[in-house]
Amino acid sequence: MSELASDLAELVTANHILAREDVLDAFGHVSLRSPQADGEYFISRSRSPELVVVEDLQRYDLDSKLLGDDERRGYIERVIHGGIYKARPDVKAVAHFHSPAIMPFCVADIVWKPVTHLGATIGTDVALWDSQAEFGDTDMLVSTADQAASLAWALANSNAVFLRGHGAVVVGGTLRELAMRTIQLCRNGDLLLRSLPFGGVTPLTAGEIALSGAKNLEPPVLARAWDYWATRAGH
Amino acid sequence: MSELASDLAELVTANHILAREDVLDAFGHVSLRSPQADGEYFISRSRSPELVVVEDLQRYDLDSKLLGDDERRGYIERVIHGGIYKARPDVKAVAHFHSPAIMPFCVADIVWKPVTHLGATIGTDVALWDSQAEFGDTDMLVSTADQAASLAWALANSNAVFLRGHGAVVVGGTLRELAMRTIQLCRNGDLLLRSLPFGGVTPLTAGEIALSGAKNLEPPVLARAWDYWATRAGH
Amino acid sequence: MSELASDLAELVTANHILAREDVLDAFGHVSLRSPQADGEYFISRSRSPELVVVEDLQRYDLDSKLLGDDERRGYIERVIHGGIYKARPDVKAVAHFHSPAIMPFCVADIVWKPVTHLGATIGTDVALWDSQAEFGDTDMLVSTADQAASLAWALANSNAVFLRGHGAVVVGGTLRELAMRTIQLCRNGDLLLRSLPFGGVTPLTAGEIALSGAKNLEPPVLARAWDYWATRAGH
Amino acid sequence: MSELASDLAELVTANHILAREDVLDAFGHVSLRSPQADGEYFISRSRSPELVVVEDLQRYDLDSKLLGDDERRGYIERVIHGGIYKARPDVKAVAHFHSPAIMPFCVADIVWKPVTHLGATIGTDVALWDSQAEFGDTDMLVSTADQAASLAWALANSNAVFLRGHGAVVVGGTLRELAMRTIQLCRNGDLLLRSLPFGGVTPLTAGEIALSGAKNLEPPVLARAWDYWATRAGH
Repeated sequence: MSELASDLAELVTANHILAREDVLDAFGHVSLRSPQADGEYFISRSRSPELVVVEDLQRYDLDSKLLGDDERRGYIERVIHGGIYKARPDVKAVAHFHSPAIMPFCVADIVWKPVTHLGATIGTDVALWDSQAEFGDTDMLVSTADQAASLAWALANSNAVFLRGHGAVVVGGTLRELAMRTIQLCRNGDLLLRSLPFGGVTPLTAGEIALSGAKNLEPPVLARAWDYWATRAGH
Repeated sequence: MSELASDLAELVTANHILAREDVLDAFGHVSLRSPQADGEYFISRSRSPELVVVEDLQRYDLDSKLLGDDERRGYIERVIHGGIYKARPDVKAVAHFHSPAIMPFCVADIVWKPVTHLGATIGTDVALWDSQAEFGDTDMLVSTADQAASLAWALANSNAVFLRGHGAVVVGGTLRELAMRTIQLCRNGDLLLRSLPFGGVTPLTAGEIALSGAKNLEPPVLARAWDYWATRAGH
Repeated sequence: MSELASDLAELVTANHILAREDVLDAFGHVSLRSPQADGEYFISRSRSPELVVVEDLQRYDLDSKLLGDDERRGYIERVIHGGIYKARPDVKAVAHFHSPAIMPFCVADIVWKPVTHLGATIGTDVALWDSQAEFGDTDMLVSTADQAASLAWALANSNAVFLRGHGAVVVGGTLRELAMRTIQLCRNGDLLLRSLPFGGVTPLTAGEIALSGAKNLEPPVLARAWDYWATRAGH
Repeated sequence: MSELASDLAELVTANHILAREDVLDAFGHVSLRSPQADGEYFISRSRSPELVVVEDLQRYDLDSKLLGDDERRGYIERVIHGGIYKARPDVKAVAHFHSPAIMPFCVADIVWKPVTHLGATIGTDVALWDSQAEFGDTDMLVSTADQAASLAWALANSNAVFLRGHGAVVVGGTLRELAMRTIQLCRNGDLLLRSLPFGGVTPLTAGEIALSGAKNLEPPVLARAWDYWATRAGH
């Protein structure tokens, strides 16, 4: 298998992992910046992630214009991916999703903070982007370049952003980082929802977040988790 | 496969999808207005939806009288379907169910509102019908024409209605719309139950509900979700 | 298959159904009064219900003394079954379990009441039996004839009783009634736990409970649910 | 199969059981003190427990130095196991995990107490160890001999300890005791989380804890549960 073929196979596996771990469902998507061309990215045609196969992958430029002559419909919100790759050269993989574990952070007065060493993989804070502020009443989807740029601005240099009434976006330096960050955002979110009513919840210290967050991204740690998640997803 | 056969196969799939997605369980049912005769509808004989096969389907008129000579027992509450098809010419598919995700809205002081773009598929409000108000003490089932007409009155021109101490009814212009509405009613319901205790929850604006709600019913969006749910249900 | 063989096969199925529906787990048990001798009952040797096969069934008298020469260890708490069959001639099937859905009613200040038509299958109230009151510090198991008689007294003429810090006991006139009551006790319990924090929860009226409760035990209703649960349990 | 081979096979099964019962996930680990040498223990190489096979097992001394020439990477936190075997001669099996059921006890003001006869398998109290107190900002992992010794000191003579923002450690006299304790710590934890908001929750009495706790560790009780859990885990 060529290096590209191997990367694309991993993108398919990432789709299946995030579906299996209750991050993605009928909706949501995952992309990978082309390892061969920084100005391009790969993402499935419009299809639920659990069903994605390598033949579904399409190639886009950073304006999210299709490259090649594939005529199959793409995700409406693929501009999220193009917009973030444009704004963040360090980002190589992006996921957008509506996992039940994080939706309360998009609709209620709850602030996400890392309260475990695994939650620290996200960093200290997750901003909330509200489409209403800049774009007024919309269909809530991020479907224009302006909306994507506004969302990327809200993401700034962090690893995750919530969208009011909609879902979340997470970024990674590799697909494995992305899977770890995405899953731990959800797990830590679920933990907060069950813990906050009891009081006394405090985030990790800044030092703990920095040290834990770096530890969780070490290749052997990522490999161990990825192997487990891939097996569970049937790979 | 004839067009009718294809529609009936889709009705069977809808039964399995709603069972798989935790909308239906031992009880509840789904029907389809006959594509050949507006005054008739198809629904399974009395059987749990997960087990329904095409041979289980029966044909009824809008008074819920059986057409043909099938002697197998029908659902007691099939009058819900006949009553709504009579009152709402735009409705082509109906589901009645007792999903855990929506039952709290039938027994406690909680008001369902759409708080995500997907929840907007239902519309702005869901009325609560209380059999006690008009019919006093009953076995809680909707089993007479009068009860069905009263329930259809409460549904009015909306897409869903809750039944006090009992469950919900959802309608659609197609089986795919019905599946989307039913599942999103449950998902948004579950989200509200987990979010409301934290405060600060506000529904989408009227404009957002109108725009998102319409978007979610576009055929490619429905097809994407239906394909995913059908695959999960073993089709 | 003889009538007895058919009844014992149904007892095995009941074990599997209640395991599949999250009523029973590693612990808990189900029994059937002998259809041939009112003073005897059948129950598995000490084994987790999901694993029970017909060869595991043993026969006991109402003092829970083994009949026949089977030397395999029996359930310590089988006296619950003997004690209730002795006190309640109308009871033909008994289940004891520790389902997560009902345990909060055994350890916290929450009162179980039927709030749906299906919950009405249990009746109006569920008493709480506290081993501490009469027997002081014990290993919490119901393992003596005196304890079983005390528990049966608390059950009185109702269909279910909770055991403080321990679990629940449910009775039925048939295995199908028992399955319906047991599962609906759990479903209604789970619903209460999720609804009570929102306020405004009131039980069904006495009239509704009587009418719904009777309806749910009609043979076609029980058959429909049993077929579904048995299929899910692999039968 | 030799006695050692049989013990190691049981260690593999314990890995799979605790994964299946939602105690372990991508992370966490289980070990067994060598039945042949008190100063040694067996544990998998760094791998998610659900995937562990007997060939993954490695042998360590109580300083958690690898014995033999296996070059595969070990768990970073294996020092937890060595440290506890050193401090507690009675302990023959150790598990470390981050089950969602117990994480709220590691991040919020909630005190774990046994409120059921099965919860009593843990004993009366579970201490909370905070790495911050003695070691300041770290990556939250227990990766040095000093940290392990400090954790073992917090465990003292009890059966379980929580780690602030991190997870739990449970010990047993055998793998079967360990499985029972670990699973019941989680089940009782989940029950507390769902019950405490309703008030009126009190732990079992000291006498009940002693009697129930001992009962749950009797070999036939452990065998019954182990057989069930092993079957569920595919053994």
